[in-house]
Amino acid sequence: MDFDEHKKKSLDSLARAMERGEVDEGIIPLLELINSTTSFFTTSSCSGRISLSCVPLRGKKKDHVFIAKWHRKVEVEEVMEKVKMATASGMYGGAVLWLKCESFILHVGCRSVRDAGELIKLCVELGFKRSGIFRLEPFPFVEIIATDYIATPLGIDNRLKVDEDYIKFVVDVMNVRMEENDKKLKKLEEEFNRRFCQ
Amino acid sequence: MDFDEHKKKSLDSLARAMERGEVDEGIIPLLELINSTTSFFTTSSCSGRISLSCVPLRGKKKDHVFIAKWHRKVEVEEVMEKVKMATASGMYGGAVLWLKCESFILHVGCRSVRDAGELIKLCVELGFKRSGIFRLEPFPFVEIIATDYIATPLGIDNRLKVDEDYIKFVVDVMNVRMEENDKKLKKLEEEFNRRFCQ
Repeated sequence: MDFDEHKKKSLDSLARAMERGEVDEGIIPLLELINSTTSFFTTSSCSGRISLSCVPLRGKKKDHVFIAKWHRKVEVEEVMEKVKMATASGMYGGAVLWLKCESFILHVGCRSVRDAGELIKLCVELGFKRSGIFRLEPFPFVEIIATDYIATPLGIDNRLKVDEDYIKFVVDVMNVRMEENDKKLKKLEEEFNRRFCQ
Repeated sequence: MDFDEHKKKSLDSLARAMERGEVDEGIIPLLELINSTTSFFTTSSCSGRISLSCVPLRGKKKDHVFIAKWHRKVEVEEVMEKVKMATASGMYGGAVLWLKCESFILHVGCRSVRDAGELIKLCVELGFKRSGIFRLEPFPFVEIIATDYIATPLGIDNRLKVDEDYIKFVVDVMNVRMEENDKKLKKLEEEFNRRFCQ
């Protein structure tokens, strides 16, 4: 499949996902901007999230089970509710319960290696230094991601190792990160517009 | 500076760093393997580490202060000693104290875009899907990195929010990750050898 065919297919699939309300709102302006160019299109994306999940201690990624995901700042009460539910239901027997905060991430198809090079140059300048071209065939794909990441184990085998006061503290730290994430997304939107859309 | 000049400079600088004992031992066989090829050379690297650091809550990366780094599995006693030292000395007044576990990371210069493409293909096949080309000029550079990452905030403003039992738990989880990290590094070494050195 060449670049234009792939782009058309991705835009159709994005339109359907938007109709179903499955695209994180905060990232939609950036996706629309990228897709308005002739050199780029987006495939998958996430605007940044806080999540609760369980994974076996010596586990494979595929054994990862999500208990909750929030694409926004959270209240400690709603997190505690899910933590208690997971503990009571024995959901993480044999596994570690994780509270995570991940930055936005998006995958961008690029018409040429030169276009991909310009895009990663912008990412590095904005401080998103974990970004890079992760595939070159049949045309380059860039992953854009910020460096911030929090992953805190809360307990194992249905036993919590922290108290509510600690979870409140972690939630406060994560909410600050989510604010910073939104600012970074906005900055990327502005700079992408300035450099590739004018 | 062209590829061969840059490679010569990087090898000289690696040799000096090794003489000073500044290169993590676990990653040396892989560095030597990569540098033995005509298509690749390494610049910076880390074999994976557990660290204790403090960073202002709304902080810049540059305000990051390391309290301790270990390029190996750790004992809870040595971590507690550093945590207590940091708390007593007021080192993280106004900041968050973090315990982190990061996978190996290395940067590889590649003679051509085609070589870089082969290298990232290998990385993705091995599950190191955060790897990618982060720079194209004057020749491509690839960052190889595994996906595992733990970053747990322990306290703020010189006040711990967790007890020793929790730190013991986190250290156990991190030590399992360090074991898995070593296996991944070994696997990368074997596959790089099979694909690029024979």
